[in-house]
Amino acid sequence: MGVDIESICGGKGTCGKCKVRIEEGFWGNYGIRSHMDNLSPIGEAEKKMLTPRQQHDGYRLACQARIHGDVVVFVPEETAVGKQVVRKAAREIPIKLKPAVRKYYVEMVSPTLHDTCGDWERLQAELGKSLNLSDLAIDYPVLHRLQNVIRRENWKVTVSVWMNREVIKIEPGLVEKAYGLAVDIGTTTVAVYLCDLDTGEVVATASMINPQVAYGEDVITRISYSVTREDGLRSMNRAIIKGLNQLAGQAAAKARIKRSDIVDMTVVGNTCMHHIFLNLDPQYLGRSPFSSGIHHSIDVKARDLGLKISPGAYVHILPVEASFVGADNVGVLIAEEPYHQDDMVLIIDVGTNGELILGNRDRLIASSCATGPAFEGAGIKYGLRAAPGAIEKIRIDPDTRDVRFKVVGEENWNTGSGARGICGSGIIDAVAQLFAAGIIDKTGRFSTDLDCPRLRATEDGPAFVIAWAGETSIDQDIVVCQQDIRNLQLAKGAMYAGAKIMMRHLGVERLDKIIMAGAFGSYIDKESAAIIGLFPDCTQQNVFAVGNAAGAGARIALLNVDKRVEAVEMACQVEYIELAAEPTFGKVFSQAMWFPHMKDSFPHLKHLPRRKVAR
Amino acid sequence: MGVDIESICGGKGTCGKCKVRIEEGFWGNYGIRSHMDNLSPIGEAEKKMLTPRQQHDGYRLACQARIHGDVVVFVPEETAVGKQVVRKAAREIPIKLKPAVRKYYVEMVSPTLHDTCGDWERLQAELGKSLNLSDLAIDYPVLHRLQNVIRRENWKVTVSVWMNREVIKIEPGLVEKAYGLAVDIGTTTVAVYLCDLDTGEVVATASMINPQVAYGEDVITRISYSVTREDGLRSMNRAIIKGLNQLAGQAAAKARIKRSDIVDMTVVGNTCMHHIFLNLDPQYLGRSPFSSGIHHSIDVKARDLGLKISPGAYVHILPVEASFVGADNVGVLIAEEPYHQDDMVLIIDVGTNGELILGNRDRLIASSCATGPAFEGAGIKYGLRAAPGAIEKIRIDPDTRDVRFKVVGEENWNTGSGARGICGSGIIDAVAQLFAAGIIDKTGRFSTDLDCPRLRATEDGPAFVIAWAGETSIDQDIVVCQQDIRNLQLAKGAMYAGAKIMMRHLGVERLDKIIMAGAFGSYIDKESAAIIGLFPDCTQQNVFAVGNAAGAGARIALLNVDKRVEAVEMACQVEYIELAAEPTFGKVFSQAMWFPHMKDSFPHLKHLPRRKVAR
Repeated sequence: MGVDIESICGGKGTCGKCKVRIEEGFWGNYGIRSHMDNLSPIGEAEKKMLTPRQQHDGYRLACQARIHGDVVVFVPEETAVGKQVVRKAAREIPIKLKPAVRKYYVEMVSPTLHDTCGDWERLQAELGKSLNLSDLAIDYPVLHRLQNVIRRENWKVTVSVWMNREVIKIEPGLVEKAYGLAVDIGTTTVAVYLCDLDTGEVVATASMINPQVAYGEDVITRISYSVTREDGLRSMNRAIIKGLNQLAGQAAAKARIKRSDIVDMTVVGNTCMHHIFLNLDPQYLGRSPFSSGIHHSIDVKARDLGLKISPGAYVHILPVEASFVGADNVGVLIAEEPYHQDDMVLIIDVGTNGELILGNRDRLIASSCATGPAFEGAGIKYGLRAAPGAIEKIRIDPDTRDVRFKVVGEENWNTGSGARGICGSGIIDAVAQLFAAGIIDKTGRFSTDLDCPRLRATEDGPAFVIAWAGETSIDQDIVVCQQDIRNLQLAKGAMYAGAKIMMRHLGVERLDKIIMAGAFGSYIDKESAAIIGLFPDCTQQNVFAVGNAAGAGARIALLNVDKRVEAVEMACQVEYIELAAEPTFGKVFSQAMWFPHMKDSFPHLKHLPRRKVAR
Repeated sequence: MGVDIESICGGKGTCGKCKVRIEEGFWGNYGIRSHMDNLSPIGEAEKKMLTPRQQHDGYRLACQARIHGDVVVFVPEETAVGKQVVRKAAREIPIKLKPAVRKYYVEMVSPTLHDTCGDWERLQAELGKSLNLSDLAIDYPVLHRLQNVIRRENWKVTVSVWMNREVIKIEPGLVEKAYGLAVDIGTTTVAVYLCDLDTGEVVATASMINPQVAYGEDVITRISYSVTREDGLRSMNRAIIKGLNQLAGQAAAKARIKRSDIVDMTVVGNTCMHHIFLNLDPQYLGRSPFSSGIHHSIDVKARDLGLKISPGAYVHILPVEASFVGADNVGVLIAEEPYHQDDMVLIIDVGTNGELILGNRDRLIASSCATGPAFEGAGIKYGLRAAPGAIEKIRIDPDTRDVRFKVVGEENWNTGSGARGICGSGIIDAVAQLFAAGIIDKTGRFSTDLDCPRLRATEDGPAFVIAWAGETSIDQDIVVCQQDIRNLQLAKGAMYAGAKIMMRHLGVERLDKIIMAGAFGSYIDKESAAIIGLFPDCTQQNVFAVGNAAGAGARIALLNVDKRVEAVEMACQVEYIELAAEPTFGKVFSQAMWFPHMKDSFPHLKHLPRRKVAR
């Protein structure tokens, strides 16, 4: 019925995020009217994920229960997927305009009995004569419409030419505007930027949760879905293509144009998203020796991909660097251009998968690390994606240990009672503030002898209350528990360890500059990130949150073909470091899990207040 | 129910060839059980085409009567389309082999953890290293299958490369044979030649009546069908594409290969067939200034055309010369190469449309003339296409005026009683023999005072009996009537006049050589053709019937890419003469309608016996 339901495990019954309550149609083991079994019986997976109390109250896992007849289902607030606040806004980047597709207005000489060359030859001659375009090919579906289009406005037409090589669209009369679509396919979020190819301006954006989330929240789950289901790849490919067609339609509608007015498109995404988008088998990405189907960029006709933009349009898919460093990272590269800088730059692209680039004009290396879904708010007891109701900013008074928070979708701090959980930036804030206030120690352990009503013991260990039940819409205290902190430590430790190993690889002692990219990168509090040790020490004014740099890269490639060439060159030059193959990784990683680190010094954090942790 | 029914007018109710007899379900105005009207009432068109007697007997036009319920229909023998004897056999032509598609066997190095470039880059590297093929592109559907195909036979694959430019197919292991399909789309007959691209050998042929015949027997009727019906073009395009897929399947089955093993294809056809095949609007071909959609050759992906050969394969459509001189004529050109000859050559391509080429290495001109359907046996009272039952050869004894004939599908002369009508070559024979025997005069008029039981007066004027009712399967005398001779005169007169005007254009007095091409060209008796004056005087040993030269051209272009280039050059060089625009055409034409001509002398016909015509 169109109600989106949370899922992390991709329908395997192992994450328990999709709990729903059956109101009518099933009483199972506990009900009185047990003949009304319009649902399958509770299975083993559900018994593990649901407490006897929940089972008694009619809770089921939406991914496991099969419907055999009419049922009434209540979707609890914590299970429903809110409308994601997509943080992939387009940022202003000055781009030299040199698009792949240009429009030309042509007035042709109409044929006579003594001048009867073919319509296409007539157009070709005019393009050659007045615009110096020679040796042009014509896309077949364009040829198919050519004769009638050129006669509609009395032999006056506007021709869209791709790469000075091929006529990909023809329209009657004068049409001034040409549009292109830059696409960023994230594991979790898909964003499109509709651009005016003549001004470079972003005229509309649209975004959605990647519809493949239904098949698994992370890359590994999706690869495994493609392996275990015969039509797994096809289903996921169709889902993303359908989603992109929707987004293209939405963006076009906002700009008051037709979807078929879009004559060019560029796509970035991590290697797995890239493969599924291209209908390439992702299974080899997930197993040694981790080889991908194609590294190089490729131009594919929109119609061959099933994309419903102008049928003759080419879709340019940016190159990938390696099986775990994808076209999204190449997008970041051409947007940030570390290869033009003298400064030693670390770029971290924070997402469900963490990707890192380190270097400068002399040399660039890249790596990726499995951060897990903690940064996206998953794997966290009250974790949520950045949707309305998610706590995104948290401040803890170091003296009173009182808490202030800000909820996505609400304007002010601590207003209303709409909190449903905590998203990634909120978790980072919470942990940084807990540490700064001396409530957790360097190793992440909760203080055991603190007199604070918010800190309490539960059956799962100590937990700290961020929002009291009365401040929420779920009527429960929202807490950060010990396990949440452990999960965040794994994620940030992986990032830090990756950076450290890469620095050692290049013989670098100090970072001049840190760029935090990623769909939610711009919203992470850079001080909190520094406090928990998401990255090695660096002066705070040289830490930048650039937002969705991968999407910016897609836009840059859309607007300038030289950058497409640059992308291929850079994708080849960047050296990929396989972190898991480093013998010291385990040790570096375990040290990096401490806040901010077990041993490293952070001279630039000295000014920050920090309580001595009471044990 | 799959019974093919004759049609010339394309379902307009004006040719009367589709008469069928209703046995049950309709008694109309004459029947007793008039409540059983499972057919629409007899309309105006039918009243014109059916005699009252025929109406009484239950005859209807199949194209006009609409079925509202169960009916039993008898299809008379003269209405049924017999299985066409397709005369588009492949002829042996020595061709230098240089096909567009070549297969290469490659053994790749499998990836390791330290060598993880993309699968496509791995293949590219190997193709570059061992075969010196660089800068190759890969077709998207091939990329889609690449990963799994290369792993199937342990990194050993066979790659099909088009024009040293693009990988269009990839198969596991070693595959030696590569196949291509040469296609000749005639107005009436479609023929395909399946060729081994390594040896040039024709491994299988298949042919069928052009399924567009249901929409009209000639080019003009089909153009008008495309104009008057909204989905007219689409229907005809789908019909030919479906037909070609059937033929490709038949040829592949004969050669024991799969249709998808066909990796290249070339197509010839007259400009209208060319346009409908490409789904281009043919309406502008039919009206002044007669401009076509494209003249140049074009390569289109088979999948974009809906052709079910290898999906990555390109279809090469040969260029057209003008709106009425098509790619079939270009095929004839590259097969016969008049541009390499010193002799002054006239090439006549005899079909539903007549096309002429005149010239030598110095200059070439082309024209086309509307011969009408007489050469195909249509527009003739007992005319039939060259199908079983058609009289194809006729001899008339000049003394006894007795007739011998040979029927298509029967081995000997005057055997059996299976004659159903007369096909084009039979008509030419009949008229030549009638003229030689003095039964018709130079102007085509029947002798009025001849004492011969076969020559008799009918309400339509005099007629000559070729086959007595007892020698036929239709229980009627098969005759040649005055109107038949007039129709043939129009057809041959147009050809002759075209040749004459072209000769005058080039200042040529005498022809060194005449080549009769065309699907049935090889079956016309060249002496009969000379006697009726199908072309100007020429020594008989220099008249050649070469059969389907257009199809031969398609094969040549399939096997040698240089000939594709030559085809484009020649299509540009040939000058097109618009015969209808010549002020003298009317006079030249009327003189050319005489047998063999009103005024021209035919020194090379002097040896032939000829009776003085009794008046």
